[in-house]
Amino acid sequence: MATKILLINPNSNDAVTEGMREAVAPLSIPHGPVMECMTLHTGPFGVETQRDVDSVAVPLADVVHARPDAEVYVIACYSDPGLAVCREATQKPVLGIRECSIFSALSVADRFGLIALSQGSVRRHSRAFREMGVSTRCAGFAPLGMSVAKAEEPGAFPHIEAAGQRLLESGADAVVLGCAGMARHRAPLEERLGVPVVDPVQAAAAQALGLALLRAA
Amino acid sequence: MATKILLINPNSNDAVTEGMREAVAPLSIPHGPVMECMTLHTGPFGVETQRDVDSVAVPLADVVHARPDAEVYVIACYSDPGLAVCREATQKPVLGIRECSIFSALSVADRFGLIALSQGSVRRHSRAFREMGVSTRCAGFAPLGMSVAKAEEPGAFPHIEAAGQRLLESGADAVVLGCAGMARHRAPLEERLGVPVVDPVQAAAAQALGLALLRAA
Amino acid sequence: MATKILLINPNSNDAVTEGMREAVAPLSIPHGPVMECMTLHTGPFGVETQRDVDSVAVPLADVVHARPDAEVYVIACYSDPGLAVCREATQKPVLGIRECSIFSALSVADRFGLIALSQGSVRRHSRAFREMGVSTRCAGFAPLGMSVAKAEEPGAFPHIEAAGQRLLESGADAVVLGCAGMARHRAPLEERLGVPVVDPVQAAAAQALGLALLRAA
Amino acid sequence: MATKILLINPNSNDAVTEGMREAVAPLSIPHGPVMECMTLHTGPFGVETQRDVDSVAVPLADVVHARPDAEVYVIACYSDPGLAVCREATQKPVLGIRECSIFSALSVADRFGLIALSQGSVRRHSRAFREMGVSTRCAGFAPLGMSVAKAEEPGAFPHIEAAGQRLLESGADAVVLGCAGMARHRAPLEERLGVPVVDPVQAAAAQALGLALLRAA
Amino acid sequence: MATKILLINPNSNDAVTEGMREAVAPLSIPHGPVMECMTLHTGPFGVETQRDVDSVAVPLADVVHARPDAEVYVIACYSDPGLAVCREATQKPVLGIRECSIFSALSVADRFGLIALSQGSVRRHSRAFREMGVSTRCAGFAPLGMSVAKAEEPGAFPHIEAAGQRLLESGADAVVLGCAGMARHRAPLEERLGVPVVDPVQAAAAQALGLALLRAA
Amino acid sequence: MATKILLINPNSNDAVTEGMREAVAPLSIPHGPVMECMTLHTGPFGVETQRDVDSVAVPLADVVHARPDAEVYVIACYSDPGLAVCREATQKPVLGIRECSIFSALSVADRFGLIALSQGSVRRHSRAFREMGVSTRCAGFAPLGMSVAKAEEPGAFPHIEAAGQRLLESGADAVVLGCAGMARHRAPLEERLGVPVVDPVQAAAAQALGLALLRAA
Repeated sequence: MATKILLINPNSNDAVTEGMREAVAPLSIPHGPVMECMTLHTGPFGVETQRDVDSVAVPLADVVHARPDAEVYVIACYSDPGLAVCREATQKPVLGIRECSIFSALSVADRFGLIALSQGSVRRHSRAFREMGVSTRCAGFAPLGMSVAKAEEPGAFPHIEAAGQRLLESGADAVVLGCAGMARHRAPLEERLGVPVVDPVQAAAAQALGLALLRAA
Repeated sequence: MATKILLINPNSNDAVTEGMREAVAPLSIPHGPVMECMTLHTGPFGVETQRDVDSVAVPLADVVHARPDAEVYVIACYSDPGLAVCREATQKPVLGIRECSIFSALSVADRFGLIALSQGSVRRHSRAFREMGVSTRCAGFAPLGMSVAKAEEPGAFPHIEAAGQRLLESGADAVVLGCAGMARHRAPLEERLGVPVVDPVQAAAAQALGLALLRAA
Repeated sequence: MATKILLINPNSNDAVTEGMREAVAPLSIPHGPVMECMTLHTGPFGVETQRDVDSVAVPLADVVHARPDAEVYVIACYSDPGLAVCREATQKPVLGIRECSIFSALSVADRFGLIALSQGSVRRHSRAFREMGVSTRCAGFAPLGMSVAKAEEPGAFPHIEAAGQRLLESGADAVVLGCAGMARHRAPLEERLGVPVVDPVQAAAAQALGLALLRAA
Repeated sequence: MATKILLINPNSNDAVTEGMREAVAPLSIPHGPVMECMTLHTGPFGVETQRDVDSVAVPLADVVHARPDAEVYVIACYSDPGLAVCREATQKPVLGIRECSIFSALSVADRFGLIALSQGSVRRHSRAFREMGVSTRCAGFAPLGMSVAKAEEPGAFPHIEAAGQRLLESGADAVVLGCAGMARHRAPLEERLGVPVVDPVQAAAAQALGLALLRAA
Repeated sequence: MATKILLINPNSNDAVTEGMREAVAPLSIPHGPVMECMTLHTGPFGVETQRDVDSVAVPLADVVHARPDAEVYVIACYSDPGLAVCREATQKPVLGIRECSIFSALSVADRFGLIALSQGSVRRHSRAFREMGVSTRCAGFAPLGMSVAKAEEPGAFPHIEAAGQRLLESGADAVVLGCAGMARHRAPLEERLGVPVVDPVQAAAAQALGLALLRAA
Repeated sequence: MATKILLINPNSNDAVTEGMREAVAPLSIPHGPVMECMTLHTGPFGVETQRDVDSVAVPLADVVHARPDAEVYVIACYSDPGLAVCREATQKPVLGIRECSIFSALSVADRFGLIALSQGSVRRHSRAFREMGVSTRCAGFAPLGMSVAKAEEPGAFPHIEAAGQRLLESGADAVVLGCAGMARHRAPLEERLGVPVVDPVQAAAAQALGLALLRAA
């Protein structure tokens, strides 16, 4: 039976889950690990406040616990909710899309810039970067002032591109999309900016794919 | 035609290249990107001194330049020789196994410990960790006092395991193998230590696989 | 009507709450702010695992929201559970005992050492110190291998003293008690070690007292 | 007899001492510790240059030594002159208003901004923040270009407010007043800016109050 | 026989070597150590790209090895090419002009600003400052967008002065010239800016002079 | 008239000044800058406590001010007393031997270890290293438990050598002597340890020599 990678979207917004599915499709290899994207239906429609983040931590760990059929887990919200508690719930790898996106950017670039949803999330991510030890490699933040749902829409692109340009001017040589639902903007943005653009769901799914293949060996 | 990932072993030791081939075999998917492992025959038998490291930098960039058929490049020596110059030689991603191994460890753990070949390489890696910004997440170093060739042999395992134990006592919750040729020790070491053990060639190849699949999409 | 400081014990262990009450009694001034210590009865008996920590975050914010009669809030568990979400729930100050204990120690000393309950909590606190930016001022950790309840008992003192001695040898010139229920050990430990010893509940309550008096002015 | 907290103003400007007295009045509790504010009459009128700072260090330690009737000492100048030598002169706690103001801000906020008297003092404070380890939590500096005496006057408020606004734009979520004589501006500034504003004398006096109460227990 | 200091210019541009000779002339004392400036004729005309930097590393070590008559070696290119490998090639001191320039600036000032040749070199130097641990003392970078040869010409001065002014506005209280061939601009720039200006070749030669005199004692 | 470098010994111990004179003799070049070593006779016999350090700050600045005939000043006490105030007293360079010793060590090595007089001075130096930004490059401290006068005597050597050995084991690849009066031990210690040993008075005098020659050009 195929190894399974379980990507859990804590936003109870199936459109975001569907976007994730499309985002990771290139990583779904015939006969390779299965990428299963699921929605945490008890979660908020968009994980945007700190309360949203904290309210899904234990439910995410419950999902991890209830799904021993998966070999690697991905928490698919840019605030990496419940990462520590999920890791406590299993011996298997649990990946956060924020952590993976930053490490992916730093694998190919010197300093990254982050396109965030809101000024409030900037503060949250900035704390995380201090904790991760990567603050000196963050060239800056560019908040969009948008909801998760809004940032997914095609109409968001001009705002996203402008944010990316500001980050390049701050010295970034890679740009990270700071939300689970922005994958569709990755390729066009990379083409416009001329530097690597990282989608966090793809970055984590790629890392998960590697772990799954190696663990199945 | 299949996307190609080119892993370049700067050690002119085909046994190490062969070990790399075995190491990345689980990441070679039917119909997926091709993992080509090649030896830099002009390199030293084992890249161990700083001179070894510096002498292969430009030749590695020449290989990168001469092989535009590849989509992602991996420099397969733990000192990440020539990483900057190789990146200057192409617009495509060039990954270093040291950088990827650390980011892979930090994707699943809080603080990593490094099993290094020698005390001399510890100083080199420690400088790199300062540059990367990850010094505060390094729990310690355990040098083996071995050559690249020696570390690859089965007889090295007891020494490697002892080194790993010292790192756990220093607070590491993941262990990184600090050499291109130690992949065979990864799985048994992980089983003995009970924490994730990262082989750097596998970590970089996994990252490369993800990039290749996403870039081909 | 008197200004109120609400100290919330997320451990559903009334003995710990009672210990807190005794701990902050010296800070309860006639005609001054009222120190109300309450138990979060829906919390675990001892907040020890990450799941314990995350499970009380939103309930703590609910308490904060439900108690607008208080002027300052103190989250009385050393892992500072729910600090960010509680701060989102009110415009008034919400203090964490871990943060306050460290800042209190650094107000009188150069480097602090932490007596922690367990090795697991060490990792949690160490992450927090990185996030706070105070890692370079932490001389070390000494885990007790005890539960919250056990650490409160008189019999724990010899173990606590031994832990303190180890921290002095690591270069600490102040010692912080890393648990909400250890206040009774503070004064005797300070006498034995000859350096300032900080009880986190007292440190946070003192900070709260100052804020309450200034806000009432 | 009541426990005594001795706040020493190294500026030989009694108006500043009088301002301090008003600033700490809300922390003077009936039957609680006495807050005694004294002027170091041998000090300069305003501690503004490095020479001013260094010239008061030993005299401050002499005061500490000569006043064993106090239980806690506060050095009430934002450059924290003589803090180390005063601590050498007594076993009792000696607090600096700069250190306490920063720790107080970080107890309720993520990143602080500092309103400083002059560009020269910015350099001094910036060195101190590096030493304290809190540089990554400093969002910026806004120098006023004013003397101690001038900054105390009501007419300074518009300049102070403008400085505070610049700090908010730099990402500060708390503002610290970088001078012993600006307490009167605290409450109105907090109201205008909508984030916590910390007066350093009050922050240190609050910390001292807590220590005094706990030590008298 | 006189002690010899060997300054090796990896740019195969004798005009730069001649400029170095003039730059270090004030440090050539009668009967003191001899300052020999030599050109690495196999090097690129101007070391500007990463490939230029890496291509001269081993040749520089060969020179060091072939010249045991020298007592101290100076690598005279601001990217400090081959510093580690040259140090491996001899037990005697090998100095890099980038490292020496920064340490010289920090010996007299709080925060330095760097005038760099290009935006590309900024990234290289910024990595080095992270590795050296001095990032927090760097006030900023001002790239000129010039070649080595161009930066040496008198006509470059107005651009250099403007760059220096920008660095002062960023908070620098010392300015470092980030190229081996800019010594002639040092004194006039210092006069215009009013803060110490460091020429890296002079800084390293001065450090070498001290080492040579002490080693000959 | 010859350029003058003024080295001021804040210890009122002429034997230490005499030792400094011998230490810098190799840097006194015929027709070169004059190295004048003077004793601050109002200073303590040995600057050992924080009070000693602070009591000489302003008197040192007075000397600097009173001696405009000098071109460069060196404060010759390892605690760098009065460095900031002396810099305020003149536009010319003022060097501290602690700062210069560390920068000199880092010019030739990766991580330094410090041989300190006492545990008390370790705390002082450790604060300074945090302020300087070089903490991550300090491999450790080895306190001797000796006075300034004692450390100067030949009998101190075995203790100093043992301290040096401990620092090598901690990972230091250079050793710094943490006191103004230990120059005589430098050369023999370097021979025994096999790594560079830095005397701080010599390191600062060498830096001063370079500055004096360049400023006279």
